[in-house]
Amino acid sequence: MELRYPNGKKYILDKTAKKQPKPSKSISYSNRGMTLEEDLNITNLFYLQKGTAVIHKKPTPVQIVHVDYQSRSTAVIKEAYFKQPSTTDYNGVYQGRYIDFEAKETNNTTSFPLQNFHDHQIDHMKKVVDQNGISFVILRFAKTEEVFLMESVYLFRFWDRMLAGGRKSIKKDEIETVAHPISIGLHPRIDYIPIINKILNRKI
Amino acid sequence: MELRYPNGKKYILDKTAKKQPKPSKSISYSNRGMTLEEDLNITNLFYLQKGTAVIHKKPTPVQIVHVDYQSRSTAVIKEAYFKQPSTTDYNGVYQGRYIDFEAKETNNTTSFPLQNFHDHQIDHMKKVVDQNGISFVILRFAKTEEVFLMESVYLFRFWDRMLAGGRKSIKKDEIETVAHPISIGLHPRIDYIPIINKILNRKI
Repeated sequence: MELRYPNGKKYILDKTAKKQPKPSKSISYSNRGMTLEEDLNITNLFYLQKGTAVIHKKPTPVQIVHVDYQSRSTAVIKEAYFKQPSTTDYNGVYQGRYIDFEAKETNNTTSFPLQNFHDHQIDHMKKVVDQNGISFVILRFAKTEEVFLMESVYLFRFWDRMLAGGRKSIKKDEIETVAHPISIGLHPRIDYIPIINKILNRKI
Repeated sequence: MELRYPNGKKYILDKTAKKQPKPSKSISYSNRGMTLEEDLNITNLFYLQKGTAVIHKKPTPVQIVHVDYQSRSTAVIKEAYFKQPSTTDYNGVYQGRYIDFEAKETNNTTSFPLQNFHDHQIDHMKKVVDQNGISFVILRFAKTEEVFLMESVYLFRFWDRMLAGGRKSIKKDEIETVAHPISIGLHPRIDYIPIINKILNRKI
């Protein structure tokens, strides 16, 4: 289940920190306190302001059932439901090229569960690749704060292996073999554009 | 104010038809009954299924305030508000290139009001153009069912003219001069990709 709501994540993180006051955990989060989504939003804002790229997170898709028009100016949504997204969460443009990615994190340390992705997202990524778009996933191992950019074509291989009855996750050393590590910085937090440059240079 | 909610538009259209049963109007809508948004969604689905392009409408941005988790499986959003979109409504990829557009319609017959657009949307379009993305607006004159694709660079001119104290709309003959007419078909309804080809061929 993928239920997210804006500004909610940080509070959940805080609660977790209180419930599990293990020294290793609190050190792990202490100089961050941010989710992958927040890091990427800040990164994309940095790119936007610098004129590097125009990448946005799509709004969470919601099925609106009832709206209360309390006054002329205020409309309050009184009943709505989260919908399964039909695409990936992030897209935009870099030097004319279409950029499209999904970002996921895990608390696992030795593998990345494929259940983080959905059929329709894989389908969407395949369509983007067919259209010659730049399609990838950003994977974060939360405990070690390691972030990787993995091109979708590799995700498809691991996905197909699972569908053929194979393992339901990607081993971390498999990710290290095919994906690009992203070092975490301050400005921007998750500097993935240099890796896009690598990918583009390789394709040309 | 831009308040839209899914599946709501058609009902509004039906009500209007009942309130204003002028022959000219009912004829105008009789062989359509669809809004510009619905026409574009069908067109984009056609492109998607044919493998022509991958273009999606972004979800309506909503600020979620309260979610009721009634059971383990059902989350009901009980309080939420419409947010101003920070980008345009449609984007995606065509042959590796980033496509980005906004679609608007008017009931006016001789001009297109610029109030249909917002500052931040114009800003977004300018950033997309700077990144060498394909940025445009699709304009529909509802009464005559005429649809035009106008590249954003022309919209900026009319926008800047307004900011400089000029007229708050684009005259229809100005649109006819700089924009590309799109003939309305059945499959797809609003076939804009041939115009993208023109634009791309001109740029190369």
